[in-house]
Amino acid sequence: MTLARDIATFVANAEPAQAARGIMAQSLYDWMACGMAGVSEPVAAIMRAQALDDGGTAQASMFGGGHVPARAAALVNGTISHALDYDDTHFAHIGHLSVGVLPAVMAAAPKDGLAALEAACIGFEVATRVGLWLGRGHYQAGFHQTATAGAFGATAAVARLKGLDAGQVAHAFGLAATKAAGLKSQFGTMGKPMNAGLAAECGVVCADLAARGFVSNPDGLDGPQGFGPTHAGEANMAAWDGLGEVWQMAEVSHKLHACCHGLHATIEALTPLKAEAEAVKAITITTHPRWLTVCNQPAPDTGLGAKFSYAHVAGMVLHGWNTADIASFSDACAQDAALVAFRDKVRVVADEGLAETEARVALDLKDGPQREGHHDLMAAQDPDQKWQALRRKGAALVGEHEAQLWQAVQTERAPDLDALSELMQMEPFRSGPV
Amino acid sequence: MTLARDIATFVANAEPAQAARGIMAQSLYDWMACGMAGVSEPVAAIMRAQALDDGGTAQASMFGGGHVPARAAALVNGTISHALDYDDTHFAHIGHLSVGVLPAVMAAAPKDGLAALEAACIGFEVATRVGLWLGRGHYQAGFHQTATAGAFGATAAVARLKGLDAGQVAHAFGLAATKAAGLKSQFGTMGKPMNAGLAAECGVVCADLAARGFVSNPDGLDGPQGFGPTHAGEANMAAWDGLGEVWQMAEVSHKLHACCHGLHATIEALTPLKAEAEAVKAITITTHPRWLTVCNQPAPDTGLGAKFSYAHVAGMVLHGWNTADIASFSDACAQDAALVAFRDKVRVVADEGLAETEARVALDLKDGPQREGHHDLMAAQDPDQKWQALRRKGAALVGEHEAQLWQAVQTERAPDLDALSELMQMEPFRSGPV
Repeated sequence: MTLARDIATFVANAEPAQAARGIMAQSLYDWMACGMAGVSEPVAAIMRAQALDDGGTAQASMFGGGHVPARAAALVNGTISHALDYDDTHFAHIGHLSVGVLPAVMAAAPKDGLAALEAACIGFEVATRVGLWLGRGHYQAGFHQTATAGAFGATAAVARLKGLDAGQVAHAFGLAATKAAGLKSQFGTMGKPMNAGLAAECGVVCADLAARGFVSNPDGLDGPQGFGPTHAGEANMAAWDGLGEVWQMAEVSHKLHACCHGLHATIEALTPLKAEAEAVKAITITTHPRWLTVCNQPAPDTGLGAKFSYAHVAGMVLHGWNTADIASFSDACAQDAALVAFRDKVRVVADEGLAETEARVALDLKDGPQREGHHDLMAAQDPDQKWQALRRKGAALVGEHEAQLWQAVQTERAPDLDALSELMQMEPFRSGPV
Repeated sequence: MTLARDIATFVANAEPAQAARGIMAQSLYDWMACGMAGVSEPVAAIMRAQALDDGGTAQASMFGGGHVPARAAALVNGTISHALDYDDTHFAHIGHLSVGVLPAVMAAAPKDGLAALEAACIGFEVATRVGLWLGRGHYQAGFHQTATAGAFGATAAVARLKGLDAGQVAHAFGLAATKAAGLKSQFGTMGKPMNAGLAAECGVVCADLAARGFVSNPDGLDGPQGFGPTHAGEANMAAWDGLGEVWQMAEVSHKLHACCHGLHATIEALTPLKAEAEAVKAITITTHPRWLTVCNQPAPDTGLGAKFSYAHVAGMVLHGWNTADIASFSDACAQDAALVAFRDKVRVVADEGLAETEARVALDLKDGPQREGHHDLMAAQDPDQKWQALRRKGAALVGEHEAQLWQAVQTERAPDLDALSELMQMEPFRSGPV
């Protein structure tokens, strides 16, 4: 039981690096904004109604208001915060980190902001490394790392918050091994966001049962017929290198635009060129070939279609539309005459030499020299600039509550948990089309 | 979506045969006795404490007392009723039926006893056929049909009770596809009974969400990257032959002795021979070779060991011990001088020509001719005799409450649900060693 012991020791003793905590504050802010805005989604009403009908001890806040037992809050908030699919992504983990781990952390009702932040870092790190350890083979087989690896991350976070000893952590993991579940074949349905909720719920339940003395198989993750072996896991042992020293969770990406991830590098490359749409004669966008089958719709006529269109989104950027705002991607936007006309100026070219996270743009102007831009989403970003971009997204998602949200995560040492809990209770701000 | 549609139609419209309902009354009695006795197990205290701490709307009874939301009752009662591993088994399904399906049925708080019985039959049938459809490959890969196929059975039963239309049933199944989970690597730990609880909980949650309008992937069970394809399912389509006409659930077996299933045919073959232990010179037991590595401990010295010993159990039968009583299998029994001495008279022989459910016994007496016996657990049994045997087990498990339990399932047309709910609230009778 080497792996189980290593993870248990990490969960019980790890001290997240300062940089990891800084990233976590961004993820916490971003996750809160996604959750507060997600309350308007139909799946939110369903999950909230079930939890409210069940009722129970008021242990934790739900997005949209109401206090329910921790388990229920984790399930509901995980689902709601993933409903817009606008939350963070970790490409190596192959999934979304916040929506599995943070609902569990908040539901466990931590008293101390710093402890919550550290537990969240530990949960993110475990989720990331379990995701890497399961590998692409697990994902290709049909499993959804957000749900599966996320369940172990959530379990780690809650186990840390509850102060479980190493033996109890191992039993919590063993229990998560028989409960963790989530399939990619739910994509496109309410089942996708619920997969995130299931991960968060699993963490709360398994850590709680282990604290009560539940005896499971401590090798349930990687032992014979454990979770990895039974779920097409690749068992990439390199995934565990440097555990406790290197914080791989710090590579998490935050989505800054309310459209397909394949378009984000293009938006970032275009924005600093500061061209007026009328001054543009033609645009050439160069991207990784993979995206041509994903987000290169030439003439979308719905808001959903616009989220998958280089030609349309390039026009939105140059016409000053706020691509961080979900409400921007409306049917009206897709049918806007100026944007529709502008699409003819856009040419999309594939280049295998680019990373999937990279894009180049070239603007031919009616007047003056060509302007060129380039962006790689993985490039190191100045923290202040990153916060500015996140806050633009936050403002688009939660409107008047943004300043309070920013304040709550930007206290000197640790997040203000009471303020976050209060923000969860807010009525949703967003009222535009989705 | 042929399979999804066929199942949905079955769940919405099936009319269980009279014989199926008769078997179900036996399973209901047997499950209640296992649950009422299981309350003494350590895992019961843990699960009950978690549910009571969470609290919530008093929708359903827990074994051992207390009313909690349906979801929690299903989880707790599924776990408790499987804790003794004394509940029913369906060999073709490769798992236990009652403990996944019946906690969900009872938790859904049906008003009408006949409707509950019919929903239970439908849940059993779906669990059985999903188990067959997943096949032995699913089990060998490490999955626990009790949990996985059981989750679909529980979903079917609650969907029927709630009167979902066929479309809603398909969404409930799609949702169960992403939530169902349970590994065999939990065997020997508290995780094994919890797998049954997870199945029951899954049924309550998924049917309830579907009733509230949750949209899932209606082909989540068998479609691309659905539950079967991702979980080593064999996709044995013959499993669905005659759905609605043939009730395969009626093949369910009830465990009548509190020891390894491999010993049961031997006990049944020995009992009618009515020999006194002192009159016996030697016994020859002939059994399927598979059991020789499972339950042929020659000299056990613990109660647990005695449960896996032909030599010891044969002596128990002839010395008048009650093999239906869990308390019989104590360390004191394993060390009983008369029984230990008797073991030398027992010889165990393998015969590939026997079924796994079959045994032959030959008694050489000090005086008089050899007596021979034979039993096959799969042989048709007279219902009255079956009930008598079940009631001996019930009396051993629930003591003074047995008459009330018998009364509650033996009303003319349907079980008395209020009486069953009241029985669940009873303090456990059993106090002997396990």
